[in-house]
Amino acid sequence: MAGNIVIGICGGSGSGKSTLARKIKDEFGDKASIVSMDSFYKFQPDTTYEERTKTNYDHPDAFDTDIMIECVKELKSGKDTKIPVYDFTIHNRSSQPWETVKATPVIILDGILLFAFPQLVELMDIKVFVDTDADVRILRRVHRDVIKRGRSVESVIDQYLNTVKPMHEAYVEPYKKLADVIIPEGAHNSVAREMVISLIKERLNKQ
Amino acid sequence: MAGNIVIGICGGSGSGKSTLARKIKDEFGDKASIVSMDSFYKFQPDTTYEERTKTNYDHPDAFDTDIMIECVKELKSGKDTKIPVYDFTIHNRSSQPWETVKATPVIILDGILLFAFPQLVELMDIKVFVDTDADVRILRRVHRDVIKRGRSVESVIDQYLNTVKPMHEAYVEPYKKLADVIIPEGAHNSVAREMVISLIKERLNKQ
Repeated sequence: MAGNIVIGICGGSGSGKSTLARKIKDEFGDKASIVSMDSFYKFQPDTTYEERTKTNYDHPDAFDTDIMIECVKELKSGKDTKIPVYDFTIHNRSSQPWETVKATPVIILDGILLFAFPQLVELMDIKVFVDTDADVRILRRVHRDVIKRGRSVESVIDQYLNTVKPMHEAYVEPYKKLADVIIPEGAHNSVAREMVISLIKERLNKQ
Repeated sequence: MAGNIVIGICGGSGSGKSTLARKIKDEFGDKASIVSMDSFYKFQPDTTYEERTKTNYDHPDAFDTDIMIECVKELKSGKDTKIPVYDFTIHNRSSQPWETVKATPVIILDGILLFAFPQLVELMDIKVFVDTDADVRILRRVHRDVIKRGRSVESVIDQYLNTVKPMHEAYVEPYKKLADVIIPEGAHNSVAREMVISLIKERLNKQ
Protein backbone atom coordinates (compact mmCIF):
# COMPACT_ATOMS: atom_id res chain seq x y z
CA MET A 1 0.00 0.00 0.00
CA ALA A 2 1.34 3.36 -1.03
CA GLY A 3 -0.10 4.93 2.09
CA ASN A 4 -1.54 8.10 0.71
CA ILE A 5 -4.94 9.37 1.81
CA VAL A 6 -7.62 10.25 -0.71
CA ILE A 7 -10.22 12.78 0.46
CA GLY A 8 -13.30 13.39 -1.67
CA ILE A 9 -14.93 16.79 -1.25
CA CYS A 10 -18.34 16.92 -2.86
CA GLY A 11 -21.17 19.46 -2.76
CA GLY A 12 -23.36 21.54 -5.04
CA SER A 13 -22.24 24.33 -7.31
CA GLY A 14 -21.40 27.33 -5.14
CA SER A 15 -21.33 25.29 -1.93
CA GLY A 16 -17.81 26.33 -0.95
CA LYS A 17 -16.26 22.90 -1.56
CA SER A 18 -13.36 24.20 -3.65
CA THR A 19 -12.52 26.76 -0.97
CA LEU A 20 -12.49 23.97 1.60
CA ALA A 21 -10.31 21.82 -0.69
CA ARG A 22 -7.85 24.71 -1.08
CA LYS A 23 -7.71 25.41 2.64
CA ILE A 24 -6.96 21.76 3.39
CA LYS A 25 -4.32 21.75 0.65
CA ASP A 26 -2.74 24.90 2.16
CA GLU A 27 -2.45 23.15 5.51
CA PHE A 28 -0.33 20.36 4.02
CA GLY A 29 1.59 22.37 1.43
CA ASP A 30 3.75 20.17 -0.81
CA LYS A 31 2.33 17.08 0.85
CA ALA A 32 -1.08 17.58 -0.75
CA SER A 33 -2.47 17.81 -4.27
CA ILE A 34 -5.91 18.75 -5.53
CA VAL A 35 -7.53 16.93 -8.43
CA SER A 36 -10.61 18.80 -9.59
CA MET A 37 -13.27 16.89 -11.47
CA ASP A 38 -13.64 19.96 -13.72
CA SER A 39 -10.34 19.02 -15.36
CA PHE A 40 -12.07 15.94 -16.75
CA TYR A 41 -14.81 17.63 -18.75
CA LYS A 42 -14.99 15.74 -22.03
CA PHE A 43 -13.01 16.81 -25.05
CA GLN A 44 -15.62 17.94 -27.59
CA PRO A 45 -13.97 17.96 -31.03
CA ASP A 46 -15.96 18.87 -34.14
CA THR A 47 -18.37 21.07 -32.18
CA THR A 48 -18.93 24.78 -32.45
CA TYR A 49 -18.60 27.11 -29.45
CA GLU A 50 -22.36 27.70 -29.77
CA GLU A 51 -23.03 23.96 -29.53
CA ARG A 52 -20.72 23.62 -26.57
CA THR A 53 -22.50 26.36 -24.63
CA LYS A 54 -25.55 24.09 -24.78
CA THR A 55 -23.86 21.06 -23.22
CA ASN A 56 -25.29 20.05 -19.86
CA TYR A 57 -22.16 20.44 -17.75
CA ASP A 58 -23.92 19.28 -14.62
CA HIS A 59 -24.72 15.80 -15.94
CA PRO A 60 -22.42 12.82 -15.28
CA ASP A 61 -22.06 12.27 -19.05
CA ALA A 62 -20.20 15.59 -19.36
CA PHE A 63 -17.14 14.03 -17.74
CA ASP A 64 -14.45 11.59 -18.89
CA THR A 65 -14.83 9.72 -15.64
CA ASP A 66 -12.82 6.70 -16.79
CA ILE A 67 -9.76 8.90 -17.23
CA MET A 68 -10.30 10.44 -13.80
CA ILE A 69 -10.61 7.01 -12.18
CA GLU A 70 -7.37 5.88 -13.83
CA CYS A 71 -5.58 9.02 -12.66
CA VAL A 72 -6.74 8.61 -9.06
CA LYS A 73 -5.79 4.92 -9.12
CA GLU A 74 -2.34 5.86 -10.33
CA LEU A 75 -1.93 8.44 -7.54
CA LYS A 76 -3.21 5.97 -4.98
CA SER A 77 -0.64 3.44 -6.13
CA GLY A 78 2.06 6.02 -5.44
CA LYS A 79 2.73 7.13 -9.03
CA ASP A 80 2.54 10.68 -10.36
CA THR A 81 -0.13 11.12 -13.01
CA LYS A 82 -1.12 13.49 -15.78
CA ILE A 83 -4.51 15.14 -15.99
CA PRO A 84 -6.10 17.04 -18.88
CA VAL A 85 -6.37 20.82 -18.81
CA TYR A 86 -9.79 22.33 -19.31
CA ASP A 87 -10.34 25.79 -20.73
CA PHE A 88 -13.56 27.35 -19.47
CA THR A 89 -13.32 30.26 -21.90
CA ILE A 90 -13.79 27.94 -24.91
CA HIS A 91 -15.89 25.32 -23.08
CA ASN A 92 -13.47 22.64 -24.20
CA ARG A 93 -10.35 20.74 -23.27
CA SER A 94 -7.33 22.92 -23.78
CA SER A 95 -4.67 21.98 -26.31
CA GLN A 96 -2.05 22.50 -23.59
CA PRO A 97 -0.07 19.44 -22.51
CA TRP A 98 -1.64 17.48 -19.67
CA GLU A 99 -0.59 18.63 -16.20
CA THR A 100 1.43 16.49 -13.83
CA VAL A 101 -0.11 15.79 -10.44
CA LYS A 102 2.29 14.41 -7.86
CA ALA A 103 1.45 11.35 -5.80
CA THR A 104 1.58 13.31 -2.55
CA PRO A 105 0.61 11.75 0.79
CA VAL A 106 -2.69 13.69 0.69
CA ILE A 107 -4.81 13.66 -2.47
CA ILE A 108 -7.86 15.93 -2.44
CA LEU A 109 -10.59 15.29 -5.00
CA ASP A 110 -13.02 18.13 -5.63
CA GLY A 111 -16.20 18.00 -7.69
CA ILE A 112 -19.97 18.33 -7.70
CA LEU A 113 -20.55 14.80 -9.05
CA LEU A 114 -17.79 13.04 -7.19
CA PHE A 115 -20.08 10.78 -5.20
CA ALA A 116 -22.21 9.78 -8.20
CA PHE A 117 -19.53 7.39 -9.47
CA PRO A 118 -19.12 4.28 -7.29
CA GLN A 119 -15.69 3.52 -8.75
CA LEU A 120 -14.46 6.93 -7.62
CA VAL A 121 -16.13 6.66 -4.23
CA GLU A 122 -14.36 3.33 -3.67
CA LEU A 123 -11.01 5.07 -3.98
CA MET A 124 -11.77 7.63 -1.25
CA ASP A 125 -10.60 7.18 2.33
CA ILE A 126 -12.52 10.17 3.65
CA LYS A 127 -15.72 11.53 2.10
CA VAL A 128 -16.85 15.06 2.91
CA PHE A 129 -20.01 16.71 1.63
CA VAL A 130 -20.28 20.49 1.88
CA ASP A 131 -23.93 21.33 2.36
CA THR A 132 -24.94 24.87 1.60
CA ASP A 133 -28.48 26.17 1.11
CA ALA A 134 -29.62 26.39 -2.49
CA ASP A 135 -30.38 30.12 -2.21
CA VAL A 136 -26.86 30.89 -1.01
CA ARG A 137 -25.39 28.72 -3.75
CA ILE A 138 -27.33 30.38 -6.58
CA LEU A 139 -26.43 33.84 -5.27
CA ARG A 140 -22.76 32.87 -5.49
CA ARG A 141 -23.27 31.75 -9.09
CA VAL A 142 -25.02 35.03 -9.90
CA HIS A 143 -22.18 36.95 -8.31
CA ARG A 144 -19.55 34.97 -10.20
CA ASP A 145 -21.24 34.74 -13.60
CA VAL A 146 -22.96 38.12 -13.79
CA ILE A 147 -20.60 40.39 -11.88
CA LYS A 148 -17.25 38.71 -12.57
CA ARG A 149 -17.82 37.05 -15.94
CA GLY A 150 -20.24 39.57 -17.44
CA ARG A 151 -22.98 37.09 -18.34
CA SER A 152 -26.63 38.15 -18.45
CA VAL A 153 -28.86 37.51 -15.46
CA GLU A 154 -31.35 35.76 -17.78
CA SER A 155 -28.78 33.25 -19.03
CA VAL A 156 -27.67 32.46 -15.48
CA ILE A 157 -31.28 31.95 -14.37
CA ASP A 158 -32.05 29.77 -17.42
CA GLN A 159 -28.99 27.59 -16.91
CA TYR A 160 -29.70 27.26 -13.21
CA LEU A 161 -33.33 26.23 -13.62
CA ASN A 162 -32.79 24.04 -16.69
CA THR A 163 -29.66 22.15 -15.77
CA VAL A 164 -27.93 23.10 -12.49
CA LYS A 165 -30.95 22.60 -10.23
CA PRO A 166 -32.41 19.40 -11.76
CA MET A 167 -28.96 17.81 -12.02
CA HIS A 168 -28.22 18.79 -8.42
CA GLU A 169 -31.41 17.06 -7.33
CA ALA A 170 -30.68 13.98 -9.45
CA TYR A 171 -26.92 13.50 -9.04
CA VAL A 172 -25.63 15.55 -6.10
CA GLU A 173 -28.19 15.61 -3.28
CA PRO A 174 -29.03 11.85 -3.35
CA TYR A 175 -25.38 10.95 -2.80
CA LYS A 176 -24.98 13.18 0.25
CA LYS A 177 -25.64 10.13 2.41
CA LEU A 178 -22.47 8.47 1.17
CA ALA A 179 -20.46 11.11 3.01
CA ASP A 180 -18.62 10.32 6.22
CA VAL A 181 -19.38 13.85 7.36
CA ILE A 182 -21.56 16.63 6.06
CA ILE A 183 -20.31 20.16 6.64
CA PRO A 184 -22.94 22.86 6.73
CA GLU A 185 -21.47 25.83 4.81
CA GLY A 186 -17.96 24.54 4.44
CA ALA A 187 -15.60 27.37 3.80
CA HIS A 188 -16.50 29.38 6.84
CA ASN A 189 -16.80 26.48 9.20
CA SER A 190 -13.43 26.40 10.89
CA VAL A 191 -14.24 23.63 13.41
CA ALA A 192 -15.20 21.21 10.63
CA ARG A 193 -12.09 22.09 8.65
CA GLU A 194 -9.94 21.59 11.73
CA MET A 195 -11.65 18.22 12.22
CA VAL A 196 -10.88 16.98 8.71
CA ILE A 197 -7.30 18.25 9.01
CA SER A 198 -6.84 16.55 12.41
CA LEU A 199 -7.99 13.23 11.01
CA ILE A 200 -5.64 13.47 8.04
CA LYS A 201 -2.73 14.33 10.35
CA GLU A 202 -3.56 11.45 12.67
CA ARG A 203 -3.70 9.01 9.75
CA LEU A 204 -0.43 10.33 8.31
CA ASN A 205 1.23 9.94 11.71
CA LYS A 206 0.07 6.37 12.02
CA GLN A 207 1.70 5.35 8.77
CA MET B 1 -9.35 29.04 31.22
CA ALA B 2 -10.03 25.60 32.61
CA GLY B 3 -9.11 24.06 29.30
CA ASN B 4 -11.70 21.37 29.01
CA ILE B 5 -13.52 20.70 25.76
CA VAL B 6 -17.30 20.57 25.60
CA ILE B 7 -18.76 18.50 22.74
CA GLY B 8 -22.49 18.69 22.06
CA ILE B 9 -23.98 15.65 20.34
CA CYS B 10 -27.49 16.31 19.09
CA GLY B 11 -29.86 14.37 16.84
CA GLY B 12 -33.37 12.95 16.76
CA SER B 13 -34.72 10.18 18.93
CA GLY B 14 -33.20 6.91 17.74
CA SER B 15 -30.51 8.64 15.68
CA GLY B 16 -27.63 6.87 17.36
CA LYS B 17 -26.32 9.97 19.14
CA SER B 18 -26.01 8.30 22.55
CA THR B 19 -24.06 5.42 21.02
CA LEU B 20 -21.71 7.93 19.45
CA ALA B 21 -21.39 9.78 22.76
CA ARG B 22 -20.52 6.51 24.53
CA LYS B 23 -17.96 5.51 21.93
CA ILE B 24 -16.23 8.86 22.22
CA LYS B 25 -16.30 8.58 26.02
CA ASP B 26 -14.77 5.06 25.78
CA GLU B 27 -11.91 6.46 23.74
CA PHE B 28 -10.94 8.90 26.49
CA GLY B 29 -11.80 6.76 29.54
CA ASP B 30 -11.47 8.69 32.80
CA LYS B 31 -10.67 11.84 30.89
CA ALA B 32 -14.24 12.13 29.59
CA SER B 33 -17.71 12.46 31.13
CA ILE B 34 -21.13 12.31 29.54
CA VAL B 35 -23.91 14.65 30.61
CA SER B 36 -27.21 13.51 29.14
CA MET B 37 -30.00 16.04 28.77
CA ASP B 38 -32.42 13.30 29.87
CA SER B 39 -31.11 13.71 33.41
CA PHE B 40 -32.66 17.17 33.44
CA TYR B 41 -36.28 16.21 32.81
CA LYS B 42 -38.33 18.35 35.18
CA PHE B 43 -39.28 17.15 38.61
CA GLN B 44 -43.06 16.78 38.52
CA PRO B 45 -44.31 16.72 42.11
CA ASP B 46 -48.02 16.48 42.86
CA THR B 47 -48.76 14.65 39.61
CA THR B 48 -50.06 11.14 39.11
CA TYR B 49 -48.21 8.55 37.03
CA GLU B 50 -51.11 8.74 34.57
CA GLU B 51 -50.69 12.51 34.23
CA ARG B 52 -46.97 12.15 33.77
CA THR B 53 -47.39 9.66 30.92
CA LYS B 54 -49.15 12.47 29.07
CA THR B 55 -46.30 14.98 29.41
CA ASN B 56 -44.76 15.98 26.09
CA TYR B 57 -41.19 14.82 26.74
CA ASP B 58 -39.98 16.04 23.37
CA HIS B 59 -40.79 19.70 24.05
CA PRO B 60 -38.15 22.12 25.42
CA ASP B 61 -40.43 22.88 28.40
CA ALA B 62 -40.03 19.30 29.65
CA PHE B 63 -36.48 20.11 30.76
CA ASP B 64 -34.95 22.05 33.63
CA THR B 65 -32.58 23.70 31.23
CA ASP B 66 -31.40 26.35 33.68
CA ILE B 67 -30.03 23.65 35.96
CA MET B 68 -28.30 21.97 33.03
CA ILE B 69 -26.72 25.25 31.92
CA GLU B 70 -25.42 25.86 35.44
CA CYS B 71 -23.98 22.33 35.63
CA VAL B 72 -22.19 22.68 32.29
CA LYS B 73 -20.85 26.11 33.29
CA GLU B 74 -19.50 24.62 36.47
CA LEU B 75 -17.79 21.79 34.57
CA LYS B 76 -16.40 24.25 32.07
CA SER B 77 -14.93 26.33 34.88
CA GLY B 78 -13.09 23.21 36.08
CA LYS B 79 -15.34 22.29 39.01
CA ASP B 80 -17.09 18.96 39.52
CA THR B 81 -20.86 19.25 39.51
CA LYS B 82 -23.95 17.35 40.60
CA ILE B 83 -26.76 16.42 38.25
CA PRO B 84 -30.25 15.10 39.04
CA VAL B 85 -31.11 11.45 38.49
CA TYR B 86 -34.12 10.69 36.33
CA ASP B 87 -36.16 7.54 36.69
CA PHE B 88 -37.80 6.53 33.40
CA THR B 89 -39.91 3.83 35.08
CA ILE B 90 -41.87 6.44 37.06
CA HIS B 91 -41.53 9.27 34.53
CA ASN B 92 -40.14 11.51 37.22
CA ARG B 93 -36.96 12.69 38.88
CA SER B 94 -35.65 10.00 41.19
CA SER B 95 -35.42 10.58 44.93
CA GLN B 96 -31.80 9.37 44.78
CA PRO B 97 -29.06 11.88 45.64
CA TRP B 98 -27.81 13.86 42.69
CA GLU B 99 -24.87 12.27 40.86
CA THR B 100 -21.42 13.78 40.76
CA VAL B 101 -19.98 14.48 37.32
CA LYS B 102 -16.27 15.16 37.27
CA ALA B 103 -14.81 18.15 35.47
CA THR B 104 -12.85 15.93 33.08
CA PRO B 105 -10.86 17.39 30.16
CA VAL B 106 -13.58 16.14 27.77
CA ILE B 107 -17.25 16.83 28.54
CA ILE B 108 -19.77 15.21 26.20
CA LEU B 109 -23.32 16.58 26.16
CA ASP B 110 -25.98 14.32 24.69
CA GLY B 111 -29.60 15.24 23.94
CA ILE B 112 -32.27 15.65 21.30
CA LEU B 113 -32.92 19.31 22.14
CA LEU B 114 -29.37 20.35 22.89
CA PHE B 115 -29.12 22.85 20.05
CA ALA B 116 -32.49 24.47 20.78
CA PHE B 117 -31.05 26.39 23.74
CA PRO B 118 -28.65 29.17 22.73
CA GLN B 119 -27.15 29.38 26.22
CA LEU B 120 -26.19 25.71 26.01
CA VAL B 121 -24.92 26.03 22.45
CA GLU B 122 -22.64 28.89 23.56
CA LEU B 123 -20.89 26.55 25.97
CA MET B 124 -20.02 23.98 23.29
CA ASP B 125 -16.63 23.93 21.60
CA ILE B 126 -17.62 21.26 19.07
CA LYS B 127 -21.16 20.69 17.83
CA VAL B 128 -22.06 17.38 16.18
CA PHE B 129 -25.48 16.48 14.75
CA VAL B 130 -26.21 12.82 14.08
CA ASP B 131 -28.55 12.69 11.12
CA THR B 132 -30.47 9.48 10.67
CA ASP B 133 -33.49 8.93 8.45
CA ALA B 134 -36.84 9.23 10.20
CA ASP B 135 -37.89 5.70 9.16
CA VAL B 136 -34.79 4.16 10.69
CA ARG B 137 -35.26 6.23 13.85
CA ILE B 138 -38.88 5.20 14.37
CA LEU B 139 -38.01 1.54 13.80
CA ARG B 140 -35.45 1.80 16.58
CA ARG B 141 -38.09 3.27 18.90
CA VAL B 142 -40.52 0.49 17.99
CA HIS B 143 -37.81 -2.07 18.68
CA ARG B 144 -36.93 -0.50 22.02
CA ASP B 145 -40.43 0.33 23.28
CA VAL B 146 -42.39 -2.64 21.96
CA ILE B 147 -39.87 -5.47 22.05
CA LYS B 148 -37.71 -4.41 25.00
CA ARG B 149 -40.14 -2.41 27.16
CA GLY B 150 -43.35 -4.30 26.32
CA ARG B 151 -45.38 -1.26 25.26
CA SER B 152 -48.18 -1.60 22.72
CA VAL B 153 -47.52 -0.78 19.09
CA GLU B 154 -50.51 1.60 19.14
CA SER B 155 -49.13 3.67 22.02
CA VAL B 156 -45.75 3.94 20.33
CA ILE B 157 -47.36 5.05 17.07
CA ASP B 158 -49.58 7.56 18.87
CA GLN B 159 -46.72 9.07 20.82
CA TYR B 160 -44.55 9.23 17.71
CA LEU B 161 -47.14 10.98 15.55
CA ASN B 162 -48.49 13.25 18.30
CA THR B 163 -45.30 14.44 19.96
CA VAL B 164 -42.02 12.91 18.76
CA LYS B 165 -42.43 13.80 15.08
CA PRO B 166 -43.88 17.35 15.41
CA MET B 167 -41.38 18.24 18.15
CA HIS B 168 -38.54 16.86 16.00
CA GLU B 169 -39.64 19.09 13.15
CA ALA B 170 -40.02 22.12 15.43
CA TYR B 171 -37.04 21.82 17.78
CA VAL B 172 -34.50 19.35 16.42
CA GLU B 173 -34.31 19.56 12.62
CA PRO B 174 -34.22 23.40 12.40
CA TYR B 175 -31.13 23.51 14.62
CA LYS B 176 -29.16 21.02 12.54
CA LYS B 177 -27.52 23.96 10.80
CA LEU B 178 -25.87 25.06 14.03
CA ALA B 179 -23.72 21.93 13.92
CA ASP B 180 -20.06 22.10 12.97
CA VAL B 181 -20.48 18.71 11.35
CA ILE B 182 -23.42 16.51 10.52
CA ILE B 183 -22.84 12.78 10.70
CA PRO B 184 -25.12 10.65 8.58
CA GLU B 185 -26.05 7.60 10.72
CA GLY B 186 -23.64 8.22 13.56
CA ALA B 187 -22.99 5.05 15.43
CA HIS B 188 -21.87 3.01 12.47
CA ASN B 189 -19.86 5.72 10.84
CA SER B 190 -16.34 5.01 11.98
CA VAL B 191 -14.61 7.65 9.85
CA ALA B 192 -16.73 10.42 11.35
CA ARG B 193 -16.15 9.12 14.86
CA GLU B 194 -12.42 8.94 14.20
CA MET B 195 -12.60 12.53 12.93
CA VAL B 196 -14.27 13.87 16.07
CA ILE B 197 -11.84 11.93 18.26
CA SER B 198 -8.82 13.22 16.29
CA LEU B 199 -9.95 16.79 16.77
CA ILE B 200 -10.45 16.33 20.50
CA LYS B 201 -6.99 14.74 20.81
CA GLU B 202 -5.39 17.53 18.82
CA ARG B 203 -7.04 20.18 20.99
CA LEU B 204 -6.05 18.38 24.20
CA ASN B 205 -2.47 18.15 22.96
CA LYS B 206 -2.35 21.86 22.24
CA GLN B 207 -3.28 22.80 25.79
